Amino acid sequence: MKKNRRGPGLDEVGEDGIIRYLRSRHAASGGRISLGIGDDTALFNPHPGKKILFTTDLMVEGVHFSRAWIPPEDLGYKLAAVNVSDIAAMGGKPTFALLSLALPRGLEFDFVRRLSRGLRRAERTFGLQLLGGDTTSSKGGVFACISLLGTLQARRPLTRSGACPGDGIYVTGHLGASVLGLEALELGKGYRDTPALRGAVRKHLRPSPPLSWALTVARRNLATAAMDVSDGLSVDLGRLCKASGVGAEIETAALPVLPGTRKAAEAVGRDAGEAALHGGEEYELLFTVRPRKELEVQRLARRERVRVSRVGTVLRQKKIFTVSRGGRRESLVTRGWEHFQ
Amino acid sequence: MKKNRRGPGLDEVGEDGIIRYLRSRHAASGGRISLGIGDDTALFNPHPGKKILFTTDLMVEGVHFSRAWIPPEDLGYKLAAVNVSDIAAMGGKPTFALLSLALPRGLEFDFVRRLSRGLRRAERTFGLQLLGGDTTSSKGGVFACISLLGTLQARRPLTRSGACPGDGIYVTGHLGASVLGLEALELGKGYRDTPALRGAVRKHLRPSPPLSWALTVARRNLATAAMDVSDGLSVDLGRLCKASGVGAEIETAALPVLPGTRKAAEAVGRDAGEAALHGGEEYELLFTVRPRKELEVQRLARRERVRVSRVGTVLRQKKIFTVSRGGRRESLVTRGWEHFQ
Repeated sequence: MKKNRRGPGLDEVGEDGIIRYLRSRHAASGGRISLGIGDDTALFNPHPGKKILFTTDLMVEGVHFSRAWIPPEDLGYKLAAVNVSDIAAMGGKPTFALLSLALPRGLEFDFVRRLSRGLRRAERTFGLQLLGGDTTSSKGGVFACISLLGTLQARRPLTRSGACPGDGIYVTGHLGASVLGLEALELGKGYRDTPALRGAVRKHLRPSPPLSWALTVARRNLATAAMDVSDGLSVDLGRLCKASGVGAEIETAALPVLPGTRKAAEAVGRDAGEAALHGGEEYELLFTVRPRKELEVQRLARRERVRVSRVGTVLRQKKIFTVSRGGRRESLVTRGWEHFQ
Repeated sequence: MKKNRRGPGLDEVGEDGIIRYLRSRHAASGGRISLGIGDDTALFNPHPGKKILFTTDLMVEGVHFSRAWIPPEDLGYKLAAVNVSDIAAMGGKPTFALLSLALPRGLEFDFVRRLSRGLRRAERTFGLQLLGGDTTSSKGGVFACISLLGTLQARRPLTRSGACPGDGIYVTGHLGASVLGLEALELGKGYRDTPALRGAVRKHLRPSPPLSWALTVARRNLATAAMDVSDGLSVDLGRLCKASGVGAEIETAALPVLPGTRKAAEAVGRDAGEAALHGGEEYELLFTVRPRKELEVQRLARRERVRVSRVGTVLRQKKIFTVSRGGRRESLVTRGWEHFQ
């Protein structure tokens, strides 16, 4: 327990005090909400005729982050964003969220205040609203979990299971930076604050799932399969292929890697291409497109100013290969994030 | 990490293996469910015209339970039941759930299997369905969280805020056993297996929120306010009174304490009355009833074979008192569960 901590501790504010604070700061009411934070449950009216998406994601201290390096604002923001990423990847808009927190007793209340600030930022950015949650103490660090609802914005959801041989494989934004940002954060102050690594750190702490692009893809029925890149392209593409009963070929030279990401990789002694292929927590959209729709995807992406890159092709053979610039084809060894190894 | 553990470890099964297992055992599909476990999110059709309840509750190792004494089946069952308790206390029926788990790497896979078994039991008992979740590793013990949706079964929800001076204060079932069961579990084998404590241990591990009674109360508009008893009668009644802007008087002699609970209290050297007043995790329904509806409540409870006890009266004065058998009136000192003290 820190001695000279900022302001009161959680032991002084108490559970009811934390709930009162969150209610005052996330005072969602009106519209479809009948009851927000403060009763046994939240209560709302669903959108008539719309299907509901339901997801949850948790972040665990010592696994997903360290309190030594994550600003609580970023933890709050990211926790919401990673859930939004799942809703977007199905073709939905986020609506209502619940927050579960387990916090060490010795923590300062300022942590909750700052986490709530980041969460409010995410609420505005993604159009969601916190309706309640649960707060308890923890004997093993901070655990934070958000459950998020959304409404499907298309006739059919974007699932993982529709990819067909010959489809183009696309990814939004750029890859590789997040895992390098994580590395910089773990290496400490001398790294994370250098200009070469600042962008990577930002990408790690403030992921921005391509919500509006995902809605375009879903509404216009542009993708045969889609999912978000959370555990790394190689792992997640493997999951998409498995669900679709297909394989894939990735052109490594086509992976979207920013010049800044190459510099960041150099700064921590890593290979940017490997980071792009295997790095997790990108929260970009991975999707497959029938050949006859590829031009339309590229045209719409230009119009919406979204970067999309064609990184490979779906194969009938149930294996994943990489093809290098020189044309060398190799079996891809999956090396993304695996929690229990 | 245990050496002679039962079957494979989580490190051998992996995250995808855990998800595959849960999907095979909680294979919810059909009906209102469009997509269950295995994609980015779950997807379902809400009941047309019905409002939706949304709640979450988490259980943390070292705070809510110890792996030394909780059978994983009971953890899975209880985690669902405590969420059902919140939905019931609003006048709703549980529908769909998500499970978030953070598990130590060294854990045996059998833990997941047994937790899932208890959860399936709760699914059948309460009519809910697991649709998905998130699984990660943990550096600080087991952390388990369920988010649960429900549909409101009445025109108006049972909230905490409608209690009026003169209303009778009622509670379902009996009080005091759960906290004594917890004490027995913490004291160890010599205690928890004695006949005097078995019932209390059962009440702690397998709470049974009065779902069908709560629906009767909501549909027939019998209560002015209601909530579940999760942190102890004194704390929760305090919350209900605060939300309603009233006070209360509790007749300690009227608290429903089973003879078995008195024996359990003796066996661990506690006072049964204190346990009934302050003990948490009862998951009974606390509700207030207008005088002109009290007879109807008692008649319906008899018909539905639910034990309800009138334990006190709502007061205009914003304080909570206890009145002993001899008529002595004392200010109640709240002493339930507070997480951060």
